[in-house]
Amino acid sequence: MSCVANGRPVYIAGTGMTRFGKFRDKSATELGQRAALSAILESDIDPRRIEAGYVGCVFGGMLAGQRVFKELGLLGRPIVNVENACSSGGTALAEAWIAVASGAYDTVLVLGLDKLSDLGGGVLPLGTDDPDIQQGLTMPALYAMRTRAYIEKYGGKIEEVAAVTVKNRRHAKSNEYAQYRTPVSVEDVMASRMIADPVTLLQMCPNADGAASVVLSSQKIASNSRANIRVLSSVVASGTFEQGYRDLTIPDVTVRAVAQAYEEAARGPNDIDVAEVHDAAAIAEVIYYEALGFCEQGGGLRFLESGASTLGGSLPVNPSGGLLCRGHPLGATGLAQVVEVTRQLRGTVEERQVEGAKTGLAHSTGGGIWGVDNGACTVHILGV
Amino acid sequence: MSCVANGRPVYIAGTGMTRFGKFRDKSATELGQRAALSAILESDIDPRRIEAGYVGCVFGGMLAGQRVFKELGLLGRPIVNVENACSSGGTALAEAWIAVASGAYDTVLVLGLDKLSDLGGGVLPLGTDDPDIQQGLTMPALYAMRTRAYIEKYGGKIEEVAAVTVKNRRHAKSNEYAQYRTPVSVEDVMASRMIADPVTLLQMCPNADGAASVVLSSQKIASNSRANIRVLSSVVASGTFEQGYRDLTIPDVTVRAVAQAYEEAARGPNDIDVAEVHDAAAIAEVIYYEALGFCEQGGGLRFLESGASTLGGSLPVNPSGGLLCRGHPLGATGLAQVVEVTRQLRGTVEERQVEGAKTGLAHSTGGGIWGVDNGACTVHILGV
Repeated sequence: MSCVANGRPVYIAGTGMTRFGKFRDKSATELGQRAALSAILESDIDPRRIEAGYVGCVFGGMLAGQRVFKELGLLGRPIVNVENACSSGGTALAEAWIAVASGAYDTVLVLGLDKLSDLGGGVLPLGTDDPDIQQGLTMPALYAMRTRAYIEKYGGKIEEVAAVTVKNRRHAKSNEYAQYRTPVSVEDVMASRMIADPVTLLQMCPNADGAASVVLSSQKIASNSRANIRVLSSVVASGTFEQGYRDLTIPDVTVRAVAQAYEEAARGPNDIDVAEVHDAAAIAEVIYYEALGFCEQGGGLRFLESGASTLGGSLPVNPSGGLLCRGHPLGATGLAQVVEVTRQLRGTVEERQVEGAKTGLAHSTGGGIWGVDNGACTVHILGV
Repeated sequence: MSCVANGRPVYIAGTGMTRFGKFRDKSATELGQRAALSAILESDIDPRRIEAGYVGCVFGGMLAGQRVFKELGLLGRPIVNVENACSSGGTALAEAWIAVASGAYDTVLVLGLDKLSDLGGGVLPLGTDDPDIQQGLTMPALYAMRTRAYIEKYGGKIEEVAAVTVKNRRHAKSNEYAQYRTPVSVEDVMASRMIADPVTLLQMCPNADGAASVVLSSQKIASNSRANIRVLSSVVASGTFEQGYRDLTIPDVTVRAVAQAYEEAARGPNDIDVAEVHDAAAIAEVIYYEALGFCEQGGGLRFLESGASTLGGSLPVNPSGGLLCRGHPLGATGLAQVVEVTRQLRGTVEERQVEGAKTGLAHSTGGGIWGVDNGACTVHILGV
């Protein structure tokens, strides 16, 4: 990505999101409109300067972005709808980033939205004849396999994995945007309903409805330099569709994506002060500690137990509460992560603030079907 | 689009497509694989040099592109799935174009696919609570309103509109990729089943399954300069969501998109030697003659009657037979147009060749719901 990586700087000028939850009385379009309006208002940019829209959505039907822009009164802008499974929001940001870095546009609205409560709950309508899914390899089943493989390879107990949920619930306590904010104990997590042995209900992220949005700009907007958060690197990767079956504890697509992101940002894992990672299940966060280079292979549970990834530790992970507490409206998740990291770097999240955070990372990945964890992955590194 | 428009040249290195039709025994993934393989083979580029994929698809479910790339054996490339209703294929090309022009990638595979026969026929599952559709404003109804509005405003007879289908069937006769290639008369078109008065069945494009693909490259590949077709401009536009209701004969989004495309390519309508336009209905082609500047407002039927848009005329339109003969698998259509225009400029389409064509235009537009003809529009101008 030489030319674009050396292209113009791209700043996050504004952030906005809805609370995540089940909102049966609100349409996906209305959720999108609210998140986008918040981002525009926070950016203090005249909405008429927004030149284009990039919109991540999986289950919203045709032209989800156009419908939101219509309700925003932002007419006539080119809009591109993007789908990359659980990484749809991150992919929309990556496409918008190329467009701004390359000079195609100066100011772009990026939006992610999905309303999973419209789907009726339960197994998602994947519209596929994938043989793995037909035989029961749903996402909880996949994470159960990962959990077993991890413990078999590195040791540890399921209760230590469950501690991810305990940490993230503690983090979410002060996050008004999160769906589940009540603290839980390891005992609570273990006592919740068994979904796919050894994964219990509270080890899996819940469904949700929600939207998140950022405004990208080629120029610094705010006079306060801390408010001008720069996108240092933006990476989309897809999997090799085979690696995961060899070793369920090594998410190949994340390993490759983050290596490229570190290189393009000229940063390394030691530079990351705060991270939002794709904790679709408790075990996922443990595996991603390692894949993202936050600790050594097999050291994930020790990293967690040490408190390093807890607020106050050396590298707080998912200060928002992550997917485990927010829930996971596919198109919105990647941008909700970027909203949280941006606000952390701005120093505006109060109780859950990572003091002095200068560099942050957002990681989303998905499409665990058709190969394991291989469909799409995005990594964004942001800096003051 | 200053920086990108002045960015690196982008060439179409290879083209491929499947025949369009109803293929109940082939999956959308298989159709996509065949089109992509054809484009790669024609490009004579080592498939290992393909760095990324941009894939337009509407009804294929999650990660349609990843599934095709898996079957192609092209693993680990970043893939972005794009949805923009009937312009999904054109939008995928536009996103790929930005990525190559800006230097993000040197070689990219662009693919469009959809399999409408999986949807069971009839009204498409739009997954929307749009009040217009609920009250019967389906696409044929919309084109019926346009036909009536056009004839009321400018005069003319429905039989003159039906002549679009007659011309395009004549063009499609030698196009092995088209679904309907039997010549028809105006009487045949008028005698076909009434769909939405005065629009008869043969005035509407049929459903179809199919895929189309191009390989984009930042470098000239072929030693024969005629084979190096350049993308001179690439435009995505969305509508104002109101203009169409004021005057059904003026497709505002197309007017704006083509003005930008002409400006960026430093070309005008008089420079266009061959065009593929979005004839989703017979009246649509007439209206787009005018919107694209091929003739004056209200002159569309005279332009058709003069033979100007027929093969052998001054500006042949839809030499492939267009959507009316190919059918319209939404994600594939925009790229099928680009495949045809590219081959025309290369001089390789034999019986339906536009002699000496040096500059061509491809136009797709869609999302007539949520406003009329306003969801998305793409225009690409290609040149030798």
